[in-house]
Amino acid sequence: MKDFFPEVTKIQYEGAQSKNPLAFRYYNPEEVVGDKTMEEHLRFSMAYWHTMTGGGQDMFGVNTAIRPWGDVKDPMEVARMRAYAAFEFMEKMQIPYFCFHDIDLAPEGETLQETFRNIDEIVAIIKDLMAQTGKKLLWGTANLFGHPRFMHGAATSPNADVFAYSAARVKRALEITKELGGENYVFWGGREGYETLLNTDMKLELDNLARFLHMAVEYAQEIGFKGQFLIEPKPKEPTKHQYDFDTQSVLAFLKAYDLDKYFKVNIEANHATLAGHTFQHELRYARINGILGSVDANQGDELLGWDTDQFPTNVYVTTMAMYEILLNGGLAPGGLNFDAKPRRGSHEPIDLFYSHIAGMDAFARGLKVAHRLLESGELENFIAERYQSWTTGIGKKIVDGEVGFKELSEYALQNKPIVLSSGRQEMLENIINRYLFE
Amino acid sequence: MKDFFPEVTKIQYEGAQSKNPLAFRYYNPEEVVGDKTMEEHLRFSMAYWHTMTGGGQDMFGVNTAIRPWGDVKDPMEVARMRAYAAFEFMEKMQIPYFCFHDIDLAPEGETLQETFRNIDEIVAIIKDLMAQTGKKLLWGTANLFGHPRFMHGAATSPNADVFAYSAARVKRALEITKELGGENYVFWGGREGYETLLNTDMKLELDNLARFLHMAVEYAQEIGFKGQFLIEPKPKEPTKHQYDFDTQSVLAFLKAYDLDKYFKVNIEANHATLAGHTFQHELRYARINGILGSVDANQGDELLGWDTDQFPTNVYVTTMAMYEILLNGGLAPGGLNFDAKPRRGSHEPIDLFYSHIAGMDAFARGLKVAHRLLESGELENFIAERYQSWTTGIGKKIVDGEVGFKELSEYALQNKPIVLSSGRQEMLENIINRYLFE
Amino acid sequence: MKDFFPEVTKIQYEGAQSKNPLAFRYYNPEEVVGDKTMEEHLRFSMAYWHTMTGGGQDMFGVNTAIRPWGDVKDPMEVARMRAYAAFEFMEKMQIPYFCFHDIDLAPEGETLQETFRNIDEIVAIIKDLMAQTGKKLLWGTANLFGHPRFMHGAATSPNADVFAYSAARVKRALEITKELGGENYVFWGGREGYETLLNTDMKLELDNLARFLHMAVEYAQEIGFKGQFLIEPKPKEPTKHQYDFDTQSVLAFLKAYDLDKYFKVNIEANHATLAGHTFQHELRYARINGILGSVDANQGDELLGWDTDQFPTNVYVTTMAMYEILLNGGLAPGGLNFDAKPRRGSHEPIDLFYSHIAGMDAFARGLKVAHRLLESGELENFIAERYQSWTTGIGKKIVDGEVGFKELSEYALQNKPIVLSSGRQEMLENIINRYLFE
Amino acid sequence: MKDFFPEVTKIQYEGAQSKNPLAFRYYNPEEVVGDKTMEEHLRFSMAYWHTMTGGGQDMFGVNTAIRPWGDVKDPMEVARMRAYAAFEFMEKMQIPYFCFHDIDLAPEGETLQETFRNIDEIVAIIKDLMAQTGKKLLWGTANLFGHPRFMHGAATSPNADVFAYSAARVKRALEITKELGGENYVFWGGREGYETLLNTDMKLELDNLARFLHMAVEYAQEIGFKGQFLIEPKPKEPTKHQYDFDTQSVLAFLKAYDLDKYFKVNIEANHATLAGHTFQHELRYARINGILGSVDANQGDELLGWDTDQFPTNVYVTTMAMYEILLNGGLAPGGLNFDAKPRRGSHEPIDLFYSHIAGMDAFARGLKVAHRLLESGELENFIAERYQSWTTGIGKKIVDGEVGFKELSEYALQNKPIVLSSGRQEMLENIINRYLFE
Repeated sequence: MKDFFPEVTKIQYEGAQSKNPLAFRYYNPEEVVGDKTMEEHLRFSMAYWHTMTGGGQDMFGVNTAIRPWGDVKDPMEVARMRAYAAFEFMEKMQIPYFCFHDIDLAPEGETLQETFRNIDEIVAIIKDLMAQTGKKLLWGTANLFGHPRFMHGAATSPNADVFAYSAARVKRALEITKELGGENYVFWGGREGYETLLNTDMKLELDNLARFLHMAVEYAQEIGFKGQFLIEPKPKEPTKHQYDFDTQSVLAFLKAYDLDKYFKVNIEANHATLAGHTFQHELRYARINGILGSVDANQGDELLGWDTDQFPTNVYVTTMAMYEILLNGGLAPGGLNFDAKPRRGSHEPIDLFYSHIAGMDAFARGLKVAHRLLESGELENFIAERYQSWTTGIGKKIVDGEVGFKELSEYALQNKPIVLSSGRQEMLENIINRYLFE
Repeated sequence: MKDFFPEVTKIQYEGAQSKNPLAFRYYNPEEVVGDKTMEEHLRFSMAYWHTMTGGGQDMFGVNTAIRPWGDVKDPMEVARMRAYAAFEFMEKMQIPYFCFHDIDLAPEGETLQETFRNIDEIVAIIKDLMAQTGKKLLWGTANLFGHPRFMHGAATSPNADVFAYSAARVKRALEITKELGGENYVFWGGREGYETLLNTDMKLELDNLARFLHMAVEYAQEIGFKGQFLIEPKPKEPTKHQYDFDTQSVLAFLKAYDLDKYFKVNIEANHATLAGHTFQHELRYARINGILGSVDANQGDELLGWDTDQFPTNVYVTTMAMYEILLNGGLAPGGLNFDAKPRRGSHEPIDLFYSHIAGMDAFARGLKVAHRLLESGELENFIAERYQSWTTGIGKKIVDGEVGFKELSEYALQNKPIVLSSGRQEMLENIINRYLFE
Repeated sequence: MKDFFPEVTKIQYEGAQSKNPLAFRYYNPEEVVGDKTMEEHLRFSMAYWHTMTGGGQDMFGVNTAIRPWGDVKDPMEVARMRAYAAFEFMEKMQIPYFCFHDIDLAPEGETLQETFRNIDEIVAIIKDLMAQTGKKLLWGTANLFGHPRFMHGAATSPNADVFAYSAARVKRALEITKELGGENYVFWGGREGYETLLNTDMKLELDNLARFLHMAVEYAQEIGFKGQFLIEPKPKEPTKHQYDFDTQSVLAFLKAYDLDKYFKVNIEANHATLAGHTFQHELRYARINGILGSVDANQGDELLGWDTDQFPTNVYVTTMAMYEILLNGGLAPGGLNFDAKPRRGSHEPIDLFYSHIAGMDAFARGLKVAHRLLESGELENFIAERYQSWTTGIGKKIVDGEVGFKELSEYALQNKPIVLSSGRQEMLENIINRYLFE
Repeated sequence: MKDFFPEVTKIQYEGAQSKNPLAFRYYNPEEVVGDKTMEEHLRFSMAYWHTMTGGGQDMFGVNTAIRPWGDVKDPMEVARMRAYAAFEFMEKMQIPYFCFHDIDLAPEGETLQETFRNIDEIVAIIKDLMAQTGKKLLWGTANLFGHPRFMHGAATSPNADVFAYSAARVKRALEITKELGGENYVFWGGREGYETLLNTDMKLELDNLARFLHMAVEYAQEIGFKGQFLIEPKPKEPTKHQYDFDTQSVLAFLKAYDLDKYFKVNIEANHATLAGHTFQHELRYARINGILGSVDANQGDELLGWDTDQFPTNVYVTTMAMYEILLNGGLAPGGLNFDAKPRRGSHEPIDLFYSHIAGMDAFARGLKVAHRLLESGELENFIAERYQSWTTGIGKKIVDGEVGFKELSEYALQNKPIVLSSGRQEMLENIINRYLFE
C-alpha cells in the first residue's frame, strides 16, 4: 500500500524545549514514571471513527476534511485504504491501541449478511496489520445509532425486531473483538433514551436494556470472550435524555438489574461536563465504586451545550485525570482513547497529527505532574490531617459501628464548641499551580 | 393571639370564571376527581421556612418582606407569633399540611440544650394548634446546613464532632416529628457534598453518610416512628457538587449501601431542572423504581442556574406532574409541599396568599387535566400500540427470557426489512394542548 | 404533477372541540381578531429547508424521513418535485408564505455558473406556482454556511475570495428575492463567528462583515429591491461564538457601523433561549428599539444546549410572543416562519402536517389570548399604576430633564422614607393563567 | 491600631522554586516585563467588600469567616477596624490599589444624612491611611442593590423617589471618589433589570438609566472629577435579566443613548462566563471597540450557574487575559481588582492571604507567558499569514471600498476554485501549552 501521510515521518520525543510542532515535548513512550513506562501508563488509543472515518460534518455543513481517499468512489476500496492508513497513522504517532465500531471499518450493506461480509473483509486486513505492527485493539463496539432503524432506540426500541437486529450486530461485534484480541467491549447507547415521555414506556425500555446486556454477558461467556464490558455514560445528545446519563445513573441501573459485577464504565471527559460534572468527578466516583474501566480522552467547551469532542489540551484537566487514574492503579485493561476530532476548520491530514500530538503531550505532562504530586503526598497528607478525627475517639467509634444516635446525642450535648479547620481550597489550588509550572 | 393577616379572609373556591384574585378558580377541596377529593389527591403543604421564616434575602440584598413580627425584637416572641400565624395562614388558605426544619420553629441557642429548649417551647404551641385546627405535619427535618459548623458538611463533615452533633439534632427532630404525627421525615443534604476534590475524601464521606442514615433508620425503629424516610436530591448549591445529585444518584447510593428498602425520594421540581432533567423525568424515574415518595412543589427558571424556588404556575408542568402522581397511585403518605417563596419584590403579606393561590390552582388544574387525560387513555393507548411488538412473537420471547443472542441473530438474519412507526411527538404535544385548553 | 401528499386533504378549521388531529382547533384564517384576520396577524410561512429539504439527519445518524422523492436519483428532478410538493403543502396547510435559502431550491453545481443555472430553473417553476396559487415569498436568503468553502466564514472569512464568492451568491439571491416579490431578505451568519480567538482577527472580520452588508444595501438600492433587510441573531452553533450573538449584540454592531437604519432583526425563539434570553425578551428588546422585523417560529428545549428547532407548541410562549407582536403593531412585512422540523422519529410525511397544525394552532390560540389580554388592559393598567410616579412631581421633572444630581440629592435628603409597592409577580402569573385557560 | 493579621508578615517574592505558601513565586513587583514593572502592568486592587466586609454567607448559611472584629458590637467601631485592617492587608500583600462601595466603608444609618456622616468618618481615616501608605483608590462606587428600597431597581425603579435617592448616593460617592483621588468610577447595576416582563416598562427603565448616567457625567464635569466612568456588565443575578447583560449589550445601550464617549467597561471574568462568553472574548470585544477600561479579576465555575467570585488560579485564563490587556496597551487608569472571595470553608484570616497570593501569582505568571508569547510573535505571525489575502488583490480592493457586489460577482464567476488553509486550532493550542509550561 502507498504511504497515506507522506508529509509526516514518525513523531519523535524531542523534549520540553523543542519547538518542532511535529515532535513530542512530553510523551516519551519508554520513559519510566514511577513503576511503569509512559506507554504502559497511558495506553493511548486511536478512535477509528474520528480519525479514519470522520470528515468534519456538522449540523450546518458537510465534510471539509481532505483525506487520501477523497476521490475514491468505491466504498470498499475506501474502507481498505482507511485500514492501511490507520496503521500507518498509529505507527507514525506511536499509538499502541485502537478502538472501532463495526461499521467504522466497512460500509453497511443492503442486508445484514452483506454488512457482515463487508466488515469481515476489512477485519481480515486489520488482523494482518495488527500482526505486522504489534498494534492492539483496546475495545470494539457496534454502532447502533446511525441507521434509521435505530431512530427510536436499539435495545430500547419499541420494535422488538430492532432489538433482535441489534443483538445480531453485537453478537458479531463481540466475535470480532474476541478475534482481534480486544481487551474490552463498550456499550454507548446513543439512542437508548427518549425524545419525549409522552410516547415512552420507560420501565419496559430499561428492562429490555438490561435483558440485552445480560444476553451479551452470557454470549461472551459462551464464546470465551474475557474482555471487560464497559458502559459509556452520556446525558443527552442525540436523544433528549439518555438512560446512561452519568456514572451515578449507570451504577443505579447496574445494581437494579444485577449487572454490576460484569460492567465498568468508560468515562468520556466531554460527556462528564455535559452532565454537569467535572471529568475528575466522574473518574473519582467511578474509582471509589470500583467501576473505573477506561477513558475517552477528549475535552468539551463548557460554554457550549453539545458534544464537541475536542482534543484534550488543558493540562489542569489531564493532571487531575491522571491523578485519579494513578490512584486507581492505572486503567488496564482500559486505556486513553482519543474520542476526539480536529475542529472542522482543521481540515488537512496533518491536522490529525497536530491534534494527537497536542493530546498525547497534554496527557503525558499531566501524568508527570500527577506522579510528582502523589510522590510528594502533599494533597494526601493534607486530607489525612483534615479527616484525622475519624481515626480516634468518637470518629473511630462511628466508623467501627459502636455508637448510634443516642450515644452521639449524649456526646454532642456534653461536647465543647466545635472548632473547624479551614478547607484551604485556594492554597491547594496554588499548590497545584506549583506542581504544574515548576 | 391577634389576627396576623387581617386583610385576607378564608380563600374560597369561586370557579373558573372568577376574577377575584383572592379566590380559587380550580382548587375545590371537596370536589371529587376520580376516586378521591382534590384535597386527598393534592395533599398540599405549607413550607414553614419560606412562608413563615423567609424574608426575601438574596446574595446581593437583605430581607424585604413586610411581616407582622417585623418590629418585634425578642426572637422567641417572633417564633411564637410565627407559629400562630402559620396556622392562621393554613386555615385561610385551606392547606391541610405543613413541613418544617427544627430551627425554622425557634432560634438556635448558645448551646444545643438551649436550642432544644427553644424548639420544644414552640413545638408545644404547635401541637396545641394542630389539635385545634386539624392541620397535620407532612414531614419534619433538621437544618444541618445553615450554621458555620456545617460548612464542610454534616454527616459528611471531616470533623467527627460535627457528625455527632448532627446525629443529636436529627435524633431530636425525629422525636418531634413522631410527637407531632409527622407522616414522613426528609433528609436534604445541603452541605453533604464538596467544594473541591482537592481536599475531599469522597469515599469516607459517602460511607459516613450511609452510616448516618442507617443510624436514623435504627433510631426510628427504636422509638417506633413509622413515617417514610425521604431523601431530597439536588445537584449543586450551596456546594459545588452534592452527593444526592438527582434521583438516579440517590438510587445508586441507596443500593450501594443497602438503604433502598428504607428510603424514597422527595423530588423538587427546581432541583430536577438544575440537574438537567425535567420534573416529569424525575417523577417518572422514581415512580418506575418504586421510590416516589413526596414532592417539593415549585418551579425554577431554566435560564437561571440557581434554585429560584418560584411558585409553580406552569400548568404544562403541573399536568404532567399530576399525570405521574396519578399513575403512582397518589403520593400518600407524601404530599405537595410548596417549597417556594414569593419573589423578593413581592414583599407584602398578601403576596403570600397570591402566591399560594397561584400554585394551588396550577396544581388543581393540572390534576383535572391529567385525570381527564388518563380517563381517555389516549396516551396509554398510543403507547400500548407503539410497544405491541413486545407482547407477541419474538418480542414476547425476549421478555420471557426464551432467546439469547444466537437465536436473535438467526431471526434477524432471516427477517424482512424493519418498518418503524412514527413517534408522533408533535401530534402528541398537540393532544396535550387539546386537554389543557378544552 | 402528481399529488405528493395524497393521504391529506386541505386542513380545515373545526373549532376547539374537534378531536380530528388533521384539523385546526384555533387557526381560522378568516376570523377577525381585533382589526385584522388571523391570516393577516399571523402571516405564517413554511421554511423550505426543513419542510422540503430536511430529512432528520443529526450528528449521530443519517436522514430518517420518508419523502415522496425518496427513490429519485436525479437531484434536479428531486428539486422539481420538491417545488411542486411545497405548493401542495402550503395549499393544504393554508400557509400563505414561504422562505428559502438559494440552495434549498436546487443542488449546488460544480461551478457557480452551474449553481445559478440550477437555481434559476427551479425559480421559474416557483414563480409559476406562486402565480397559480397566490402564495408569497416572505423572505429569501443565501446559504453561506454549508459548503466547505465557508468553513472559516463567508463575509468574515480570512480568505478574500470567499468574501467575493459570497457576494456573488447574495447578489443573485437578492435578485431572485426581488423577482419573486420577496418582502424581506435575511442574513443568518452561520459561520460568521469564530472557533478560537487564537487564530482570529476579530476586528478585521467585523469590519468586513459591515462592508459586506453595506454592499448589500447598495446593491438592493441599485436594483430597486424594497424589501426589509433582516439579521437573524444566534449566539453559537455551528461556530463557538457567532458575532450576531443576540439582538443586543446585533444592535451594537449595526450602530457601530452605521447600518441601523437599514436592518431589523429576525428573531428565532430557539436562538433566544440559547443566548440565555426568553423569546419574549428578545421580542421586547427589539420592539422598543424599533427593530422587530420578523420571527422564526419554533421552540427549543431549555435543558438542551443546541438548536433543536422544535415546532412551537407551548401556548405560554406563543401568547407572550403575540402580546409583543400586537404591541409592535404586527410583524408586516415580516411574518411567522416555521423554522422548525419534526423530531427525527416523526419521520412520515403526515408528521409534517401534524407538526405545522400543532404550531399554527399554538400561535392562533396565543394570538387570541394575547388579544383578550390587551383588550382588558389588565397588565397595562397594572404597569401604568406601578410607574405612575414618573408622570408627576419629581418623576416628571426627571423625565423632562429639569433636574440633575444636585436637585435630586436635595430632594432625597428631605424626602420621607420611601414606601414601595409590590411587584406582584405571582398574582400576574395567575392572571395569565386565567386568560390562558378561561 | 493593633496588628490585625499578626500571623502574617509582608509577603515576599521568593521565586518559582519556593514552597513557602506565604510567598510569591511569580509576582515580583519591581521586575520589569517589557516596558513596565509587574506592579505597573498588573495594577492589583483589593476589593473592600469581599476582603474586609464579606463573611462567607451564602443562600443556605450565615457567615463563617473568623475576623478580628468578630466580637465587636458597635458597627462604627467595626468600620474603623476594617479601615485599618484594609491598609495593613494591602501593605502585607503589596497591593497598591483598592476599590469600594460607599457602604462597604460604614453602616447605613437610619437616614441618608446619617449614612453620609458614617461614611464621611471612615473616609477621613482612609484618606489619612492613603497618605501614610501610598495606597491608591482604583475606583469607587455606590451600592444601589442591597437595601430593600432598591428591590425593583435604583435608576430603573418604578418609583421616582428611588431614582432621586440613588442620585444622592452616587453624587456623594463621586465626591468621595474624587476626594480620595480615585482613578475610575464604576456602575454595576445589580438591580437594574427585571424579574418578569409582566410588570416591567422596559423602555422607560432604559430611558431612565440613560438619564441617570447622563446626570452622573454632568455632575462629574461640574465637580471636576476626571476619572474614567465604567459600566460592569453582568447577565443575571440577582435579577432574572440585567440590562447590562454583557459588553455587547452595554455598547448597544451606550450608543443608543449617546453615552459611548463617556463610558468604558469593567469586565468581570465570572460575569463573562455567566453570559456565555469566555473572559478573553469580553476583553477582546471591548478592546477592539475601544472600551476596555478595567477588570474584576476572579473566576467562576462553568458548571455552576451563579456568580461564585472565586480567586483566579487558572493560568490559561490569566495568560489570555494578559495577552488582551498587553495588546490594549495596558489597563491604566483601570486595574485588576480582586472581586473574589475565599470559599466559605476557607474561613480563617490567613485564607485571605493564601487567596490573594494564588490570584496574584496566577496573573503574574499569565503576564510573563503572555509577554513571551507576544515577543515571539508566533500567534500574530500566524494570523497575519492567515489573513494576508486582505492586503493585496481583491481583498485590498474590498477593504479600500473599491468594489461592490457586481464587481465581486464577476470576480467570483471567473475565479478558480478556492483553496482554504487550515485554521490549525490544535497546533495553536499546543503552542500555548509550550509557552505556559516552558
